[in-house]
Amino acid sequence: MTDAVTEPVAGSATDPVTGPADGLARFSINQMTVRQLSLPELVDACRDLGVPGVGLWREPVQAYGVGAAAKLVRDAGLTVTTLCRGGFLTAVDPAERAAALADNRRAVDEAAALGTDTLVLVSGGLPAGSKDLRGARERIADALAELGPYAEEHGVRLAIEPLHPMFASDRCVVSTLAQALDLAERFPARQVGVTVDTYHVWWDDTAPAQIARAGAQDRIHTFQLADWTTPLPEGVLNGRGQLGDGSIDMREWQGYVEAAGYTGPIEVELFNDALWARDGREVLAETARRFTENVRP
Amino acid sequence: MTDAVTEPVAGSATDPVTGPADGLARFSINQMTVRQLSLPELVDACRDLGVPGVGLWREPVQAYGVGAAAKLVRDAGLTVTTLCRGGFLTAVDPAERAAALADNRRAVDEAAALGTDTLVLVSGGLPAGSKDLRGARERIADALAELGPYAEEHGVRLAIEPLHPMFASDRCVVSTLAQALDLAERFPARQVGVTVDTYHVWWDDTAPAQIARAGAQDRIHTFQLADWTTPLPEGVLNGRGQLGDGSIDMREWQGYVEAAGYTGPIEVELFNDALWARDGREVLAETARRFTENVRP
Repeated sequence: MTDAVTEPVAGSATDPVTGPADGLARFSINQMTVRQLSLPELVDACRDLGVPGVGLWREPVQAYGVGAAAKLVRDAGLTVTTLCRGGFLTAVDPAERAAALADNRRAVDEAAALGTDTLVLVSGGLPAGSKDLRGARERIADALAELGPYAEEHGVRLAIEPLHPMFASDRCVVSTLAQALDLAERFPARQVGVTVDTYHVWWDDTAPAQIARAGAQDRIHTFQLADWTTPLPEGVLNGRGQLGDGSIDMREWQGYVEAAGYTGPIEVELFNDALWARDGREVLAETARRFTENVRP
Repeated sequence: MTDAVTEPVAGSATDPVTGPADGLARFSINQMTVRQLSLPELVDACRDLGVPGVGLWREPVQAYGVGAAAKLVRDAGLTVTTLCRGGFLTAVDPAERAAALADNRRAVDEAAALGTDTLVLVSGGLPAGSKDLRGARERIADALAELGPYAEEHGVRLAIEPLHPMFASDRCVVSTLAQALDLAERFPARQVGVTVDTYHVWWDDTAPAQIARAGAQDRIHTFQLADWTTPLPEGVLNGRGQLGDGSIDMREWQGYVEAAGYTGPIEVELFNDALWARDGREVLAETARRFTENVRP
């Protein structure tokens, strides 16, 4: 895992006419995976390595300027596969709820400005002192009823991301694809769908059937990869494994989403302190190579 | 949380004729919660506080001597509600599998010697390098086919414990009550049932229905409590919260198991570095008081 950035990446040769070779044609690098790179550095590295897509995050995009970021990626010919993230819709306090809704409308505006059709939603955890998961999930539905039409007007789809159950209290009360679809189904698929991320669903033997359910409704709005490695770090947020390092068979999950009709980009999103401590271009090159090794063309 | 052991514990007054007052009548302290106490210290503390039941662990019981431990708890009038734990049945290697089966037979023998009818099973994680959760779960079923009849002959029921999905790779490939019951249902309920532990299932909106399913089949072999607190510690094993400190409504889950017909002991099992660093009798007194505050009589 100390691959130099100069090491050849299988399938990364970029033909100026046909674009990236098959091995990376569906690859999108989520910005968080290489957050040590500035936005211009990320764009440069993607061009050099033949990476065709990026999933962006609101904070670095805002810091760079939304309009400037949109121009940067557009000029480089990069596809913005998702914007991460809206959500955090579980507050009870009316002022907090209004602020969250306003912030999510801004997130929709930013997604539209960046030219992506998908805004990933991390729903939010339990309010302080609350033990009411069911009530929190219902407040998400209430918020989606307001945000869904707004998103549709702007050509953006909301993609509810179930997070691993270890985040249920403090980050996301939506823990399974079944729960995410139960919420999404109340709205048109062009407004609300789901994010399928291997890291969050790999343990769930009901997830393959839920992926089929999502696909039949055209609600798989993005497909993300990360591997499961242990031991988990304190706080459990930043221990997502590089593809191939852990317990998840990426091709198996690719098979489920493809059987459900998904043919879109495949984003690699790793939160990993060890990767963040390394050279960002080197990590991107490694991730691209691991993608070609662990994902079918 | 620095309650002195001398502080009164609600409902703990022990009447020599009627036994512990109602508030603690169903309380069992899992030995791991106060692992800093030796077995004689634990037994003394239970007597002083009016705690009627204990869940024991194999390692400290073996260290003390199984026969001596059985006599100690029997002479003190304590009910041994469970023995923790058998399991770790996912090995592929034939020699490892044979060793695991032999060790589980010894665990059954020990449970019988201690006078408890319930052996908790933690199924085991993925073998090194494996990504095959389904295969691992199937090997558990194969092992239960051998162990179930042996346990029944000794008057012991096996209680498959689904562990939180964050343990799926390295500790227990059985992550939900539905999975545990899918396994248990292949065998008679007098041989194989499940452990319901709030810590592991609280996030799961399908768990209440699965508890009803388990109850209808007489497969709720033990009910354990721990609260969910964050941030999780590195390795995520030893961060189980004291009752009332976290996100779980204990009465809600008590309601589910009671509606399903469960009227047995309620064990409190906390793995918690902060509790282990304190005086064990003080922790037991606090846990007994938290039990009366968070569980209906």
